[in-house]
Amino acid sequence: MRVYLAGPDVFLPDPHRRGAVLKAICARHGLTGVFPMDQLDAEPAEWAALAEPQRIALRNEAHIRGADALIANLTPFRGPSADVGTVFELGFMRALNRPVFGWSTGHADFSTRTREFLGDRAAPAEDGVWRDHEGLALESFGCLDNLMIDGAVVASGGVLEIFEIAGAARWLDLAPFERCVARAAEVLRGG
Amino acid sequence: MRVYLAGPDVFLPDPHRRGAVLKAICARHGLTGVFPMDQLDAEPAEWAALAEPQRIALRNEAHIRGADALIANLTPFRGPSADVGTVFELGFMRALNRPVFGWSTGHADFSTRTREFLGDRAAPAEDGVWRDHEGLALESFGCLDNLMIDGAVVASGGVLEIFEIAGAARWLDLAPFERCVARAAEVLRGG
Repeated sequence: MRVYLAGPDVFLPDPHRRGAVLKAICARHGLTGVFPMDQLDAEPAEWAALAEPQRIALRNEAHIRGADALIANLTPFRGPSADVGTVFELGFMRALNRPVFGWSTGHADFSTRTREFLGDRAAPAEDGVWRDHEGLALESFGCLDNLMIDGAVVASGGVLEIFEIAGAARWLDLAPFERCVARAAEVLRGG
Repeated sequence: MRVYLAGPDVFLPDPHRRGAVLKAICARHGLTGVFPMDQLDAEPAEWAALAEPQRIALRNEAHIRGADALIANLTPFRGPSADVGTVFELGFMRALNRPVFGWSTGHADFSTRTREFLGDRAAPAEDGVWRDHEGLALESFGCLDNLMIDGAVVASGGVLEIFEIAGAARWLDLAPFERCVARAAEVLRGG
């Protein structure tokens, strides 16, 4: 079974090494990890004329279509939420009706993270709803992130694995990833 | 033609009013706007047992599957990128191979916005690549946001409309939305 490994891991200093490590963990659990930077087996010749970001986007979409499931690194990225490229890919796979899984090293509650991010720019309004300084409400459903993300994982039969890890290790500690891969392997085997 | 209106507009103080305004603009251009808070014509009875965020997520997914295209409010939301719920939905519609459009009142360049957000937590490394304080690279492709977003809009035949609007009006000025709706109506008519 092929599992697409979505995440901001591609922005790490040595992303090819990171991809190899993630794929080795998948292999230990009987899964074939597909990293966004992998080449396609056959890339349409006309893509050679495309600008680089366009070509990368089409390649990632093709990788997702070619995979049986998706595991997303949902660790908060430059704000209270996960990386938007990762979440785009999660939504893409969800529309294909295949299982999506997520893991994170951040705090488990989206509302708490958003309040921490906003600091004194957020406060409860008269109706008890927390709003930011521009009047926009904060989600407070006890989800890991925006409800579309949690909703998709649950509805697809996937799981979320969250181990809060502070500081520099939050991009390096792969314990929640390995746990997520193990759970995904169980789900994909029908266990 | 039905167009799903993705965006953090649902977090505004009077989201039902906002939805009505967006739908009126769509109607002026011959399109039927579908707002995330709309009810479904027929909701499966078993959804009544679901937790609220789960039910909202499934309803939004059904709205997207029932629409011919998607228009996303990609205005930066609590960080340099668009709202992740919106981007999830954009990816979902892209996987269905239908046109996706985006609009924003933020600065047009993702790299510039990310550097502004990070401030002195970002700097160019020896190889010239800008990295944040945790070593993660910044995208610098001249895109509006993560390349998956720009890539999907372009590949689907959609358009991006960006009118930079500063201050409180950035959530209120609908000029880029109306321009995006007009362009979407042209594309959907095959013009």
